[in-house]
Amino acid sequence: MSTRRLVEVHLDLLSQPCRAIHILLGCNGIPHTVRPVALRKGEHQTPDFTKLNPMQKVPVLEDNGFVLTESDAIMKYLCTRHNVPEHWYPRQTERRARVDEYTAWHHTNTRPHAAKVFLLEVLIPLRTGSAVDEERLFRALSELEDTLDRLESMFLRRQPFLCGDDVSVADLLAVCELMQPLGAGRDVLQRRPQLQRWRSRVQSAVGDAFDQAHAVLYALRDRRAAKL
Amino acid sequence: MSTRRLVEVHLDLLSQPCRAIHILLGCNGIPHTVRPVALRKGEHQTPDFTKLNPMQKVPVLEDNGFVLTESDAIMKYLCTRHNVPEHWYPRQTERRARVDEYTAWHHTNTRPHAAKVFLLEVLIPLRTGSAVDEERLFRALSELEDTLDRLESMFLRRQPFLCGDDVSVADLLAVCELMQPLGAGRDVLQRRPQLQRWRSRVQSAVGDAFDQAHAVLYALRDRRAAKL
Repeated sequence: MSTRRLVEVHLDLLSQPCRAIHILLGCNGIPHTVRPVALRKGEHQTPDFTKLNPMQKVPVLEDNGFVLTESDAIMKYLCTRHNVPEHWYPRQTERRARVDEYTAWHHTNTRPHAAKVFLLEVLIPLRTGSAVDEERLFRALSELEDTLDRLESMFLRRQPFLCGDDVSVADLLAVCELMQPLGAGRDVLQRRPQLQRWRSRVQSAVGDAFDQAHAVLYALRDRRAAKL
Repeated sequence: MSTRRLVEVHLDLLSQPCRAIHILLGCNGIPHTVRPVALRKGEHQTPDFTKLNPMQKVPVLEDNGFVLTESDAIMKYLCTRHNVPEHWYPRQTERRARVDEYTAWHHTNTRPHAAKVFLLEVLIPLRTGSAVDEERLFRALSELEDTLDRLESMFLRRQPFLCGDDVSVADLLAVCELMQPLGAGRDVLQRRPQLQRWRSRVQSAVGDAFDQAHAVLYALRDRRAAKL
C-alpha cells in the first residue's frame, strides 16, 4: 500500500480555468480529489485557504506537499507528472512551443475578453443590484470579437485544434473561457461556424468530462432563463 | 558546412520582453542574428512584418522556417533547443512548474503594471504632446506597488531568485519589465532593498548581456535627463 496521497485540486467550477483542469483530470482518468472552494461565499478568503494560496485565488493543486497555482502551470504539470497522451502537451520541441505560445497569448486575449462579458452581464449586476451597463458590454463584446477573429484566422487557420491536429491543454483553456458567457444565456460563438465546429471537436475529444465540468454553468443559465 | 541558418530574432530593445530574449541569447552565447524592428517607426506594421507575424508584435523568432511569437514561449523554446544550463528552465517537473507558474502570473501582474507606468510617463506624452496624467500615474504606481509586494513576500520569500536558487527565464522577464520605467528616470525599486538585491543578483548572473540589452533604455533616460 502506497502512502502517496491522491492529487488534490481546489476548484470552483464557475471559474473557467478550474473547469479546464477538471476536464483534463476527468477525461484522462487521473485519480484526484476535488476540494470545492465557493468563490461566491468568499471561501477563497478564509485563513486556511489564504495559508494555502496567499493570492486567494483558485485553482490550486496539492500533490503530496507540492502546492502549485496558475491553471496553465497546473495543467502542464499534470500532463508531465501523469504521463497523459502526448497530444495534451507535446514533448516534441516545436509542437510544445506552439502550446506555450497559445497559453501565453491566452492570458491577455481570450481570458480577459470573454471573462469581462460575464463580469458585466452576470457578476456586477448580481453584486450591485444595478442593471447591465450596456455601453461597457457593447465595448467588451467588440473586443471579444477581435479575439474570436484571431482565433479563427490565426490559430485555427489551417488546423482543427488551436495548436495542431489534436486537442491540447490550450483548447481546454480556451473553450472554458468561451463557454463562460453562456451563464447569462449568451453563446458568443453563435455566428461563428468555424469556432462552433472547433468547440464540437473539443467536446467530442473529451467526452462526458465536458458536460460534467459545465453542469454548474448550465444550471446558472437555466435558473436565469426561468426568471425571465 | 551546414546549411542550417542561425536563429533570427526580430526585436526592438525598447520592448521589455525583447530585452529578456536578447539577454538569454547573449549570456548563453547562442549564435543568432538580430533583425531590428523599430516600433516607433511603425516597422511592425509593414506588409513584410505582418506576413511574418499577423499580430504585428515583437518579439518574433525564426528558426529555419519555424516562426514563433510570445516571449515566454520563445525563451522556453530556446532553452530546450539550445541546451542551455539547466537552471534557465529546469527539466525536473516541480522546478519547471515553478517557472511556468511565475510566467503565467507575470502576464497579468508584473508586465501590465510596470508597462503602464512607462506608457503614462513616456509613451502617451510623447504621442499626444500632452502632460503626464498624474492621477492615472498615481493609480498605476500603486497597482505596481501591490505587484512588488507580492514579488517580495511570495516569490522571493525564501529564495534568492523568483523560482528557486538560481536564475531562470522568469527572472529575465521580470527584471526587464521592472527596468522599463527607468526610461523616464524612475527606479521603481528605489525603496525596495530586497528587490534591489535580487536585481543585482540577476545582473551578476548574466554579466555584460544585461547592460547590452538595456543600452537603448539608458540612452533614453539620459536624453530625457539632459532636456530637464
